[in-house]
Amino acid sequence: MSKQPYAIEELYAAIKSRKNADPEQSYTAKLFKRGRDKIAQKLGEEATEVIIEAVKDKRKKTISESSDLLYHLLVLWVDMGIAPDDVFHELASRKGMSGLEEKKSRKKD
Amino acid sequence: MSKQPYAIEELYAAIKSRKNADPEQSYTAKLFKRGRDKIAQKLGEEATEVIIEAVKDKRKKTISESSDLLYHLLVLWVDMGIAPDDVFHELASRKGMSGLEEKKSRKKD
Amino acid sequence: MSKQPYAIEELYAAIKSRKNADPEQSYTAKLFKRGRDKIAQKLGEEATEVIIEAVKDKRKKTISESSDLLYHLLVLWVDMGIAPDDVFHELASRKGMSGLEEKKSRKKD
Amino acid sequence: MSKQPYAIEELYAAIKSRKNADPEQSYTAKLFKRGRDKIAQKLGEEATEVIIEAVKDKRKKTISESSDLLYHLLVLWVDMGIAPDDVFHELASRKGMSGLEEKKSRKKD
Repeated sequence: MSKQPYAIEELYAAIKSRKNADPEQSYTAKLFKRGRDKIAQKLGEEATEVIIEAVKDKRKKTISESSDLLYHLLVLWVDMGIAPDDVFHELASRKGMSGLEEKKSRKKD
Repeated sequence: MSKQPYAIEELYAAIKSRKNADPEQSYTAKLFKRGRDKIAQKLGEEATEVIIEAVKDKRKKTISESSDLLYHLLVLWVDMGIAPDDVFHELASRKGMSGLEEKKSRKKD
Repeated sequence: MSKQPYAIEELYAAIKSRKNADPEQSYTAKLFKRGRDKIAQKLGEEATEVIIEAVKDKRKKTISESSDLLYHLLVLWVDMGIAPDDVFHELASRKGMSGLEEKKSRKKD
Repeated sequence: MSKQPYAIEELYAAIKSRKNADPEQSYTAKLFKRGRDKIAQKLGEEATEVIIEAVKDKRKKTISESSDLLYHLLVLWVDMGIAPDDVFHELASRKGMSGLEEKKSRKKD
């Protein structure tokens, strides 16, 4: 097994390949079939679970819930035709971290 | 510019390097200083924004809000000593996508 | 001061009366002006804050954040022409609590 | 049926009375048994659903999801020993709506 068995692009590709699988066999296919709102709803649920485990300082559970959150975020991206690179380019177009810093620093909290 | 200017590990490293920066100068450093609950709160805010743009089918805004969500998720990981590999290994330990499928299929909705 | 200075209907009426106030003077009027998405976003933020304080067992802060959540929920109702009675009738149409119990018991988790 | 079959206090009392019911028979009792984190998680789920229906301008579904949100908020209050009056007094202590306005107007967004 490589050091990093699931880079984000691999996970994305795996999810994409499930898009037309049998919804009876594949959770991912079922999710695509249920549609955008359901995907968004699951994203909200997983975000809530990450938040709960994080404020309780549960590291292992935060890893587990982060996996679920990341997975559902990628399902959403596939559903909307968003590639990981679209997001990483967005982050880069903020002039990398320093751009992000600047943008964020100007934002009110 | 490379094809993928910000792989998740690079973004993670950049965030980590800001941890001890001047909170007056760096949004990231300020966030770390405000602590876990504030980071978790921001994660919830960004997740909400992704959800709203996604159900409205706003692709560009979903990319932008996804960037913010991913960024704050990584800030949380740094704050908790979670490496991206911890999360990708978790995803892999579910026997990759098929493991994930299985686990998820058994989960009630 | 009465035992219950702000029943939900009074709070609702107060919010409604602000709908056409000056957005420069009134936070409520400003929120209405910013529109549905912004109201929904604020609801998400306040829900996140209630969740964080609740899991940390902070009773006073949960009261405070619950106030904010309830307030923004009512702003949303006013914005959508939903009266408190619409919601309470919905709850009653579930044959009161026992109806709710039944409905919920059947729901998968 | 009265004009307002479920004022918030009645709903609160009904939920409270279920606290020690049989978790096999009562969804509410089961929720109390599962504990604070699960209640908070459900709150997050219902808030997400309200947000989704609201931005899609689905009035009927927003009423339904608002009912669920309000119900789970009250379960949380019962679980934490928070009475509805505690929340309404908090709202009143902000000098009613105008106090709220002031406080909020000063808050950065």
